[in-house]
Amino acid sequence: MSIVTRHLFGPGPTNPYPEATEGLARPLLGHLDPAFIEIMDETCDRLRQAWGTSNARTLPLSATGSAGMEAAFVNTVHPGDVVVVAVNGLFGQRMCDVAARCGAEVVAVEHPWGSPVDPERVLAAHPSPAIVAAVHAETSTGVRSDIAALGEAVRSATDALLVVDAVTSIGGLELRADEWGIDVGYAGTQKCLGVAPGLAPFTIGERAFARRVERPQSWYLDLGLLGGYVGEAGAKAGGSGGRTYHHTAPVAMVSSLHAGLGRVLDEGLENVWARHAAAGAALQDGLEAMGLELFAEKGSRLPDLTTVRVPDGVDSAAVRRTLLERYDIEIGAGVGEFASSVWRIGLMGPNARPAAVRLILGALSEALDEARGGSASGD
Amino acid sequence: MSIVTRHLFGPGPTNPYPEATEGLARPLLGHLDPAFIEIMDETCDRLRQAWGTSNARTLPLSATGSAGMEAAFVNTVHPGDVVVVAVNGLFGQRMCDVAARCGAEVVAVEHPWGSPVDPERVLAAHPSPAIVAAVHAETSTGVRSDIAALGEAVRSATDALLVVDAVTSIGGLELRADEWGIDVGYAGTQKCLGVAPGLAPFTIGERAFARRVERPQSWYLDLGLLGGYVGEAGAKAGGSGGRTYHHTAPVAMVSSLHAGLGRVLDEGLENVWARHAAAGAALQDGLEAMGLELFAEKGSRLPDLTTVRVPDGVDSAAVRRTLLERYDIEIGAGVGEFASSVWRIGLMGPNARPAAVRLILGALSEALDEARGGSASGD
Repeated sequence: MSIVTRHLFGPGPTNPYPEATEGLARPLLGHLDPAFIEIMDETCDRLRQAWGTSNARTLPLSATGSAGMEAAFVNTVHPGDVVVVAVNGLFGQRMCDVAARCGAEVVAVEHPWGSPVDPERVLAAHPSPAIVAAVHAETSTGVRSDIAALGEAVRSATDALLVVDAVTSIGGLELRADEWGIDVGYAGTQKCLGVAPGLAPFTIGERAFARRVERPQSWYLDLGLLGGYVGEAGAKAGGSGGRTYHHTAPVAMVSSLHAGLGRVLDEGLENVWARHAAAGAALQDGLEAMGLELFAEKGSRLPDLTTVRVPDGVDSAAVRRTLLERYDIEIGAGVGEFASSVWRIGLMGPNARPAAVRLILGALSEALDEARGGSASGD
Repeated sequence: MSIVTRHLFGPGPTNPYPEATEGLARPLLGHLDPAFIEIMDETCDRLRQAWGTSNARTLPLSATGSAGMEAAFVNTVHPGDVVVVAVNGLFGQRMCDVAARCGAEVVAVEHPWGSPVDPERVLAAHPSPAIVAAVHAETSTGVRSDIAALGEAVRSATDALLVVDAVTSIGGLELRADEWGIDVGYAGTQKCLGVAPGLAPFTIGERAFARRVERPQSWYLDLGLLGGYVGEAGAKAGGSGGRTYHHTAPVAMVSSLHAGLGRVLDEGLENVWARHAAAGAALQDGLEAMGLELFAEKGSRLPDLTTVRVPDGVDSAAVRRTLLERYDIEIGAGVGEFASSVWRIGLMGPNARPAAVRLILGALSEALDEARGGSASGD
């Protein structure tokens, strides 16, 4: 079977940075090897920079982003806690499900899909929630919500912890966990960080850690146990670099994340954000110039993930198939009721560059012409 | 920083098969790409062979082996269920913790560390348990238990489900899930399968699935939702090869497991088992010839993971440091009360071969001589 190569322009995974691939293929180290412990320590340091936090408890959880969501709630929700979730897409919905399984009394604040979260409505939903949760970059709709504003609103009116999903924002757009008042954040590696999927970058501040569930229902995601795993301050005095064995670290994936983060930080976070912003703007301008209608509300569009309406009469799946079969280009379908009426086009990590914009616009234009039954310039 | 290369002769991870490393470094595919879905399907088929099962629900969970343990209990333990756990090492202890967090009434049947599980004692612990659980190959002690005998005993006397930890047996020693009556099994990739850590090969039979918890406390490990993720029969008619989006598959790790399993199955499971048996026997004979005492009970010693007592007066950590610094050889310390009185030497996957036996015996002999303060042949 020949090796397939794709342009991953969907909602993730994206093509990885070459440094990240190289990190995957390095000779494997033991999870307690001093050389690996150094890599893990640096990875946590680099993650702090990517998150914009000084939280000691910042680490890559050993599972995908969705497990990061589970870790956020399983460690902070006490039975009966009121959790207000701002829902403006699939991942907000998922938060409700996950929090409810942890025993939360969930108050879902529904927003139209395609719109950002409204801090006023979220605040008005309950007078004293234990937790307020929102998605920074909704992967299902391509919408960015203003977490700085939400954080300020929450802090000014409540004592609630703020839990934020940054899966599709970390490493691609401005993210300042400490400045914005994020108490617990989780993310993924396979979007703007440009690393294969498999880890969940995670951060939790002192305030949230102090209120944590002492013995959460998940052993695997128990942050009390995971402190020793990444060598929390104080544990450093012990053997094996102060590590307590919890589970075997996924060493290849951590080494890859280490390398991907190195690439991102070498370029500089603000430069990386600017590169994503430029690519997204060029793509969105190009799509509108083709007469297509963007789905996400103007002013709240993600740079790294663009949602666009499928024109009337066009078979969404057929266009995606043409792109894949002719050009090895993957783009995403929509989600939920928009499954066949919206496309999701991601330009993340190494794909946030002009060549990718040019390629997807040209290929999509051609595929659309064909789907409409012939050359658009015909008459 | 130069790239470090190690001989991973500890309890895992082992050095991967070259095919597995190659699988990690391949161009990344999208998790819904037809080319990836084919890889996932084949991976599940190959896992069925490695498990010795025809269970439709056999898949690589997207986290490490310890999450496989959590998945086993979180999906099968109903509140108040009696779970009898055979404990003869750390991983049996861990089962008790994990099952209790799922609401089980845990009955731990303690065995001396270094001894195998006694089916009679396990059966006598409770007249009608909902679940009986045991570890096939105890990584903490190097002991193999007779799961065929335990399975027969459990089936003959109870209606209980049998949950088995096969982390350190799969791909290295005889494992016949269906024949032995294993209802739920979980494993890891980083031992005898010769793949980096990061996935949990998992299997569950019809009987256990029918009794499962409908909405388990873990969303991430909910087997009811994961069926669609790997394209359960029936879902195949839908789009994307019948996949339902649950979480983003860790595509690089799955591709690596696919390749590692391909290597193992090409060699033939029985040949691979024989290779591990030969390497383990040669190592154990060599250690005894050096005058060292093996820790695990004779007749129940694992071929792939050998436990040996640290001789009196020898500094366990100093010997391990010499091996690492001089020869880039990693071996494991002991666990719990045996942390500094036992070493664990693993010959797994590609390391189950004569050259590895020769290398570790020679290096350990030298390091021991030095630790004893000079040449053993001195007088």
